[in-house]
Amino acid sequence: MKALLIVAHGSRREASNEEVRALTRDLAKAAGDAFDHVDCAFLELADPSIPDGIQHCIDAGADQVVVVPYFLSAGRHVTEDIPAQVALKQAEHPDVDIRIAAYIGSAPGIADLLLDTARPTWRA
Amino acid sequence: MKALLIVAHGSRREASNEEVRALTRDLAKAAGDAFDHVDCAFLELADPSIPDGIQHCIDAGADQVVVVPYFLSAGRHVTEDIPAQVALKQAEHPDVDIRIAAYIGSAPGIADLLLDTARPTWRA
Repeated sequence: MKALLIVAHGSRREASNEEVRALTRDLAKAAGDAFDHVDCAFLELADPSIPDGIQHCIDAGADQVVVVPYFLSAGRHVTEDIPAQVALKQAEHPDVDIRIAAYIGSAPGIADLLLDTARPTWRA
Repeated sequence: MKALLIVAHGSRREASNEEVRALTRDLAKAAGDAFDHVDCAFLELADPSIPDGIQHCIDAGADQVVVVPYFLSAGRHVTEDIPAQVALKQAEHPDVDIRIAAYIGSAPGIADLLLDTARPTWRA
């Protein structure tokens, strides 16, 4: 069973965390059969933490977890902090295949998405 | 003549700013005829500033500028700081049509982009 875990930074502004939770619900719908469980977690300032988020996936029955960093650039959070927290759970659950995907800012489709975002402003 | 200006937060880590500049180059290619000039600017910590970025578009001949916030959530930067800086240039150039598009995190395609980012991790 395969789970997808979006990891966002987390914010003191609860509405920003809610945006991530809403996106997670959209993603669960969009995922179809690709992932059996879709969840989110936060690096800091909001719940659940990354280890707790991974645990939720495992509790839901996942033996494969893909962690997708919801970050625009490959700063320290992406290169060090997220891998360090994921490593804790990898050590605790060697039977579960936990992998970190590319961060969203590195997705080849991001330029097209920016264009799609800009275009309606001229139709308005 | 129509210009697209991506506005990112800006980082003390120059590699992150370079990522935005590289994305801007990709975007210029992807834009085709949709925009005549594509550029980037930073809210803080990197150059050019938002007012300078808008000025570069105007200097390049733009009479229409679309500012796209390269931000994942609608925090204070998106709702207050970027509009305040854009307003400075709107006041200075009432003849130029300067508009702010939705921020990238609100794009309907973001869920699909996250899925696209997650999938190759299982093919690897």
